[in-house]
Amino acid sequence: MLTVYGMKLSGNCYKVQLLLEQLGRPYRWVEVNSAAGETRTPQYLAMNPNGKVPLLELEPGRWLAESNAILCFLAEGSPYWPQDAWLRAQVLQWLFFEQYSHEPYIAVARYICRWLPADHPRRAELPRLRERGAQALAVMEQHLATQPFFAGASYTVADIALFAYTHAAADGGFELAAYPQVQAWLDRVRAQPGFVALAAA
Amino acid sequence: MLTVYGMKLSGNCYKVQLLLEQLGRPYRWVEVNSAAGETRTPQYLAMNPNGKVPLLELEPGRWLAESNAILCFLAEGSPYWPQDAWLRAQVLQWLFFEQYSHEPYIAVARYICRWLPADHPRRAELPRLRERGAQALAVMEQHLATQPFFAGASYTVADIALFAYTHAAADGGFELAAYPQVQAWLDRVRAQPGFVALAAA
Repeated sequence: MLTVYGMKLSGNCYKVQLLLEQLGRPYRWVEVNSAAGETRTPQYLAMNPNGKVPLLELEPGRWLAESNAILCFLAEGSPYWPQDAWLRAQVLQWLFFEQYSHEPYIAVARYICRWLPADHPRRAELPRLRERGAQALAVMEQHLATQPFFAGASYTVADIALFAYTHAAADGGFELAAYPQVQAWLDRVRAQPGFVALAAA
Repeated sequence: MLTVYGMKLSGNCYKVQLLLEQLGRPYRWVEVNSAAGETRTPQYLAMNPNGKVPLLELEPGRWLAESNAILCFLAEGSPYWPQDAWLRAQVLQWLFFEQYSHEPYIAVARYICRWLPADHPRRAELPRLRERGAQALAVMEQHLATQPFFAGASYTVADIALFAYTHAAADGGFELAAYPQVQAWLDRVRAQPGFVALAAA
């Protein structure tokens, strides 16, 4: 049985939950509270020296970190991971876009707005995070004007990865009404078989 | 014939150059100067709406962005991309680690130190970049104590991706002498057939 170490409120962890539900694959979820230091204990660092969630455990001693690497691994052989090499390359392009040009702005803005006190000094980062996050949303908007999902006609793990924080972008102060193609795509994702929503706080 | 749009001094672009040289695959290199705005022209944005290098052009109209997605695509069927699904997952884990936990600190510190004036306000970012970059190097040091390359016994695109900015980390003020396993691994990478060095400034 697969074990996922994760935080239900984290978008990166939700990606893994959503895919496993859509695959109909049984798994055990171990809730880990990184805010309480639980990803920095010697036991946790022995599983993931980078001290982050989510973490997939195939069996004791076999661990895989990085949400998007976990998505690729679990999706292999399913419709969520294309057979065609060029489409797979497109999926990977969007997965790296998500981790480099999207998540560091949209997820971090959400974190600051939702979990830090209103007078926290990190709020000074918000204008830059919102500027960069808006750039990522604009790239997505333009792309989705040409095709229904990120890697073409079919829903893949690229859509799962980008859905995770995009649909919750309002939490970080982003106005999704400015991105109608993105909004229509969010609805197409929500309509996929086996879809489950991100846990509410 | 493949075309690569890139900057020879960029570690992300160097990754693609190194792999293509090691594959012995012919390609055309188009030098693009992002500092001069050449990744923000309408022509360039039509190829890559995210406005970044490197960009791989298979043929006019077929483009692939994101250095690590390009590595995976080009390496398929070669020894640099494992046949085994679990090893491939490990390669992907390290590729995402590189883009999320390593490059944003080690490459950005290098950029600030090498290309911005000594009195530039972004130098204020250096203490945090060095702290986070040192954490990434420590994770690598620990991992390399157990195996010669990032995904086990063989050199893969994970090593290419992590080599690109690690070997140039001193440019950003990192002391590699503190990481003997990393230094020995850098030498193993340099000893690979077809290795070429990053262009000097």
